[in-house]
Amino acid sequence: MSTWAPSASISTRITLSDIVQTTHSPDPAYETPVLQLISESRSKGYDSVCLPLTTDAWKKRWTDMCIVPETAGDEKRKRESRRESRMFVSRDTTADKKAEKWRENPCFELDEVTITRLGLWYTLLRTAIEGLTEASSSDEAQNVTAIISEWLELDTEDDWIRCDAEIALQQELAYASYLNIQTAILPPPRNREYVSSYARIINACLRKIPYMNLAVRLPVYDPHAIQDPARPSTSVPGTPRSGIFPGGLKLVNPAKSLEAQIDAAWEVWDLIRTICEYNTRLSLALDLGPPLPPSLSVLSKWSAESVRYIFLPASTFIANAKGYPVLPKPTQTFIRDSMAHRPNIVLANVSSSLHSRGGEDAYSQYIKHLETTSPIVQSTKTAGTVENFAQGYQDFLQAPLQPLMDNLHSITYETFEQDPVKYRNYEEAIYAALMNLPQGTRIVICVAGAGRGPLVARSLKAIDRSKRNAFIYAVEKNPNAYVTLQNRLRSEWQRKVELLFGDMRQVNIPEKADILVSELLGSFGDNELSPECLDGAIRFLKPGGISIPSSYTAHLAPLSSSKLYNEARSVKDLKSLETPYVVMFQAVSILSGDGGGASGKCGLKIQECWEFEHPRRDGVLNEQGLPPTNTHNTRSAKLSFHIPHAGVLHGLAGYFEAVLYGNIGLSIHPLRKDSISKDMLSWFPLFFPLREPLYLPSNSELHVSIWRLTNQRQVWYEWHAESFLSIQGTSFELSTSLSTPSLGSTPRANSILTMSPSPAAPSPLIDAIEIPLERRAHKEDAEPSRMMNGLLKIGHTGLHNADGRSSWIGL
Amino acid sequence: MSTWAPSASISTRITLSDIVQTTHSPDPAYETPVLQLISESRSKGYDSVCLPLTTDAWKKRWTDMCIVPETAGDEKRKRESRRESRMFVSRDTTADKKAEKWRENPCFELDEVTITRLGLWYTLLRTAIEGLTEASSSDEAQNVTAIISEWLELDTEDDWIRCDAEIALQQELAYASYLNIQTAILPPPRNREYVSSYARIINACLRKIPYMNLAVRLPVYDPHAIQDPARPSTSVPGTPRSGIFPGGLKLVNPAKSLEAQIDAAWEVWDLIRTICEYNTRLSLALDLGPPLPPSLSVLSKWSAESVRYIFLPASTFIANAKGYPVLPKPTQTFIRDSMAHRPNIVLANVSSSLHSRGGEDAYSQYIKHLETTSPIVQSTKTAGTVENFAQGYQDFLQAPLQPLMDNLHSITYETFEQDPVKYRNYEEAIYAALMNLPQGTRIVICVAGAGRGPLVARSLKAIDRSKRNAFIYAVEKNPNAYVTLQNRLRSEWQRKVELLFGDMRQVNIPEKADILVSELLGSFGDNELSPECLDGAIRFLKPGGISIPSSYTAHLAPLSSSKLYNEARSVKDLKSLETPYVVMFQAVSILSGDGGGASGKCGLKIQECWEFEHPRRDGVLNEQGLPPTNTHNTRSAKLSFHIPHAGVLHGLAGYFEAVLYGNIGLSIHPLRKDSISKDMLSWFPLFFPLREPLYLPSNSELHVSIWRLTNQRQVWYEWHAESFLSIQGTSFELSTSLSTPSLGSTPRANSILTMSPSPAAPSPLIDAIEIPLERRAHKEDAEPSRMMNGLLKIGHTGLHNADGRSSWIGL
Repeated sequence: MSTWAPSASISTRITLSDIVQTTHSPDPAYETPVLQLISESRSKGYDSVCLPLTTDAWKKRWTDMCIVPETAGDEKRKRESRRESRMFVSRDTTADKKAEKWRENPCFELDEVTITRLGLWYTLLRTAIEGLTEASSSDEAQNVTAIISEWLELDTEDDWIRCDAEIALQQELAYASYLNIQTAILPPPRNREYVSSYARIINACLRKIPYMNLAVRLPVYDPHAIQDPARPSTSVPGTPRSGIFPGGLKLVNPAKSLEAQIDAAWEVWDLIRTICEYNTRLSLALDLGPPLPPSLSVLSKWSAESVRYIFLPASTFIANAKGYPVLPKPTQTFIRDSMAHRPNIVLANVSSSLHSRGGEDAYSQYIKHLETTSPIVQSTKTAGTVENFAQGYQDFLQAPLQPLMDNLHSITYETFEQDPVKYRNYEEAIYAALMNLPQGTRIVICVAGAGRGPLVARSLKAIDRSKRNAFIYAVEKNPNAYVTLQNRLRSEWQRKVELLFGDMRQVNIPEKADILVSELLGSFGDNELSPECLDGAIRFLKPGGISIPSSYTAHLAPLSSSKLYNEARSVKDLKSLETPYVVMFQAVSILSGDGGGASGKCGLKIQECWEFEHPRRDGVLNEQGLPPTNTHNTRSAKLSFHIPHAGVLHGLAGYFEAVLYGNIGLSIHPLRKDSISKDMLSWFPLFFPLREPLYLPSNSELHVSIWRLTNQRQVWYEWHAESFLSIQGTSFELSTSLSTPSLGSTPRANSILTMSPSPAAPSPLIDAIEIPLERRAHKEDAEPSRMMNGLLKIGHTGLHNADGRSSWIGL
Repeated sequence: MSTWAPSASISTRITLSDIVQTTHSPDPAYETPVLQLISESRSKGYDSVCLPLTTDAWKKRWTDMCIVPETAGDEKRKRESRRESRMFVSRDTTADKKAEKWRENPCFELDEVTITRLGLWYTLLRTAIEGLTEASSSDEAQNVTAIISEWLELDTEDDWIRCDAEIALQQELAYASYLNIQTAILPPPRNREYVSSYARIINACLRKIPYMNLAVRLPVYDPHAIQDPARPSTSVPGTPRSGIFPGGLKLVNPAKSLEAQIDAAWEVWDLIRTICEYNTRLSLALDLGPPLPPSLSVLSKWSAESVRYIFLPASTFIANAKGYPVLPKPTQTFIRDSMAHRPNIVLANVSSSLHSRGGEDAYSQYIKHLETTSPIVQSTKTAGTVENFAQGYQDFLQAPLQPLMDNLHSITYETFEQDPVKYRNYEEAIYAALMNLPQGTRIVICVAGAGRGPLVARSLKAIDRSKRNAFIYAVEKNPNAYVTLQNRLRSEWQRKVELLFGDMRQVNIPEKADILVSELLGSFGDNELSPECLDGAIRFLKPGGISIPSSYTAHLAPLSSSKLYNEARSVKDLKSLETPYVVMFQAVSILSGDGGGASGKCGLKIQECWEFEHPRRDGVLNEQGLPPTNTHNTRSAKLSFHIPHAGVLHGLAGYFEAVLYGNIGLSIHPLRKDSISKDMLSWFPLFFPLREPLYLPSNSELHVSIWRLTNQRQVWYEWHAESFLSIQGTSFELSTSLSTPSLGSTPRANSILTMSPSPAAPSPLIDAIEIPLERRAHKEDAEPSRMMNGLLKIGHTGLHNADGRSSWIGL
């Protein structure tokens, strides 16, 4: 399980000019310049290297074969393929013939690739022959990530250039695969109009090349779109801000706000990932070169995506007061939060002395500092936290328990009895209830569903503390746990407790109770049939008696997670996408925001579905004191969520909150759990998956219907969602808010550059002082439009778990 | 196949008061009033009857049990369930106990249902015992459509009323099922906010009751929303306009345009159908009570839905000059077009003498007149039309032929040789080409892929007509067809033709040809590998020679069809939803419109994807005159469609158009085929299905990507779509155009009422004169907004047939 501990690996990016330089001054200890560079990187402490796979010679040959040479003075003619051009111009076909021969049998010449047989491959061979251990030279090949030719235009408008770029891409990937390279970084998508072509090509490559991982390079947004062209883009003149990437997304409109641009970049990724059918070998290499917005909510969606690489060119770093490289605060926060996903952080240009202090080591040291100070890393290392307790369970789908239908095993009770918070709160609730009952009179407590006895033990403690005269009946239907109870009765509890064996819906109790204590709650509150069980047990209670818990509520939020979607559908049975799971969320993002939405009618980020109260205030009962039907335990909810940023819905997150007694409760509601039952371990949230992801644009509304249904034998949930856009008012403010240039606020990038050094910052790890900016984004958050003229339906899911076909809880 | 001929059946609706009246004056020849009414209906010529299943006694009992009685003077309190109320009010629980007992075991009392054991059921029994033929009394049960209690509120906001209404619905359907009734008509959805609950309940019933068909009653829109409240709603005062339905959809905003309302009603149906997973037992009973708009394009989507019943209350009819009942023109047109789908037309209130002339018979006679004059009925009855030729093939999915990979059977050739238009046009093209060649010199024609010889025969005719000196080489690779060719050579063609056996990509021809004739086209043009085959045959041609066809184009349009979607997924293999099919479209609707769309950049309703030309203008060839690779035959298209009305995309319709020679062509393009090759029979369109339907709102844009791809052995298509909304400008005009009441145009309903009788209309079948109205709708169509500030992505499909995994054409 320790392999799950959050941490990053750090890579360095080797460039073609690095290789050329090494060629000019080779170290005879190495067989090739590449081997030398890799070895040097390792000795500098990098875990791995990123390396361009091809040389300029390849670029030249490909271009000569496939593209019409640009003639001087002919600037109006667009760059075009020889094929397109051939339709109209009669000319020498030597290049065409060469190209067609290449298309028939694509093959590199020796000087067109950086890694050759004499390099890594030869070393691998030697390793095998000479029996060197894996840790030695063969490791070098394993730790190389190949960067595919950046100039390949997989999404250009020209059909024929795209076609030839696809052949070249397949050729490069086949060669990388031959070299046993595990991951290749792909050229970034550049043209929104043809992203579907880019994605189709990547998908074809994933299908053709069976084992290799492919990572799509993607700038978090196009930095050029918000830069003031009159000013230099970084603190070091002449270095392009985007650092690693020669091109950026060309789709973005300069008038768009930063957040809309980030949404647009994500939208490109979403399209690629969708077209590649959420292939688990496809991941993201997110370029954090451009400065991030101070409000990180727009970035939270990346945590639901497979971000395997984070590119950080030296130019992203700013200098702190001492001149050491540090990251701008939002980037820091993003990196710290990303540690949960164990990214490979790729540093580039770090040997070029962009910052005055610390040298090359300062960059990786700073990353390691971010790792150490990451909240997720810290809580994972702290005993008693859920993160520490549940290592290895992140994003792991578990079928919810059915303790009514199945008899739990001792080990399951053991696990849940470890929760200090839950039982502490139960004890406090019982204590408070006892204190509200008169001293001196005999008080009867009934523990309904005693299990191995933790609530009996806590009740006894509460009785003791409250100095009340109380007796306990403990009801349990699990014959195996009942043996443990008998043992504890004899050894610990003696005459203070009477055990009753049987289902609480059937057994009889010798006298009515003042307090009925139960722990029948599931992750969604009622999903382990607490309402139905307590319907059966509430007859034990005197009129006006107390139930602990006295009520509980189920809560829901829309959730995005490529990982959970893939996990749920990895089970071949399609029904797995209609079954709720218990999951410790990690690679997820909650899509909803607060603020009413475009219609002004949306609820909170996380919304309550329904409530159960015990005892029921009223109801028809039969002679046995039981309800004739279970129809009163049906529930339904229709919830409206505001979706501030574009995202893709993969399911719903379910939580519960319970009132035990008075103001003592239990909660796994993400925003309230820490104030109600911090560090409680017993419940992970519930995940209601969707069969098909639902795309949600920025500023849309999601209307979720969920039903708790029942028949004579079962209880089950069904769920469904519809998406809407406001068709009037200012729901589309994202595109309009920045369309007038007169809205004067300093672009973020420039503000970072004009900061003044702070004399009070002595450590290389202390942050630079930043001027807050992007106030507009903040203002929009604070004052959402309330105007509402109507909603336009834009999409829906199917009905899930119709008629309980895939999952139900047995009564 | 004759069962496929379009036609309607006509039903009458029997009301509770009809039954009560019959009870008061029974005919002793019948055992029950219901039997009497059914028998009378049959003798009036109706094919079947619709009958309410329950009586007012049932409504009273259910209401007393489940709903709090409304007390006078307490108008502010909303109608509420006893359960909800019980939470707050302490009172007598007799009704609650009765309700709970009912919920436990739902059961009718004798006087609560219209059809009892003594009625139909008894007759059925007697039929079995006395061995009566099926045509007699037992038919009566079979032809009864049960109308479920209209007052059941399956979509009310009150959870508990909904819950009890669901129990009542199940009880009614179970009883109808017991009676062997085949179809039940459900209460109309009334509350947009809770349509998902309505649909969930219907879905549960479909799953619980295995054989019965359920039809959702749906007014084509809410007539109250556009009525002027100051005027009477029909020409006969006191009769409610909607006739059959006590309630209408409450979702519509009075400010919405008629078209937007029709879209909204469809949206409700779409949601129900989706939640019920396109269950084939779920259909629509469309209420055409409200007058239809003059522009029917918004109604075309209903042809893609399962409309099994069309309700026509007598009040929908207007009187013609003679006082006979006729339908308003748009309703006429809609009914005529609907004949293709064989609807059951339900006439109601037709015995109440609403119209002065013709009596009850006039209504059904008029419907039969519409049937006879329906264009689809007429063309089906006319020899030589596609509709007549292809009866039984409507909406039937066929795998496209692969004549290159498979050798066709004689019967297949036989079928296609029946096409008079195709070969006539070929002959004309050959004739025209010959006429353009000099007289006197020897001309060589090569027929590449001669099959059983139709093109050879036509070439000979053309030679004859043109008086040219020409010789024919006929190449054929199918050894079986080659026997037929040898026979024809001996018996018909003698020395005018030389046969060459072999694949046109391999055989050699003794001399180069002036004209190369081939018939290798598929429904999508290139989908039977015409480009690849002609690449192989073009070397037969002299420089400057003529290929017939000289070029062809593939065309695409977005298509909606519940039926085709169901057909494609009925094959259990999921791959069936990624395979293009050849289909004669019937229950389909093309979703696109002309006019540029919100962005102003959209193309036509049906758009061209790509073109192939023969001979190719240029290209690298090897020594054999063949292209070294097939990469030049890859194609791709990115098309933008304007979607004027909300609809659901189930796939793409594919068509082709070919230029044979000069201005002689072949076309199955729906808008052009009649001018190019009317009544051509050989090709049905291609249907590219989608795995999951994609919802498209009104005024959205659909961007379709489609690729023709190839490797050494195969050719295949991949396709993908994205949907967008314009985020500024007036793309949402549907909600804004009518929001100002000052836009004065007379509401349609009133215009119909104020028409003056025309003295020149003598026949009961001649139409009333109507005043054109809803000019606004026309104006909007004619002047779409061209303003465009950006597109907001709202949805996408997956990539279909990725890497040719599901379907390909073998080279």
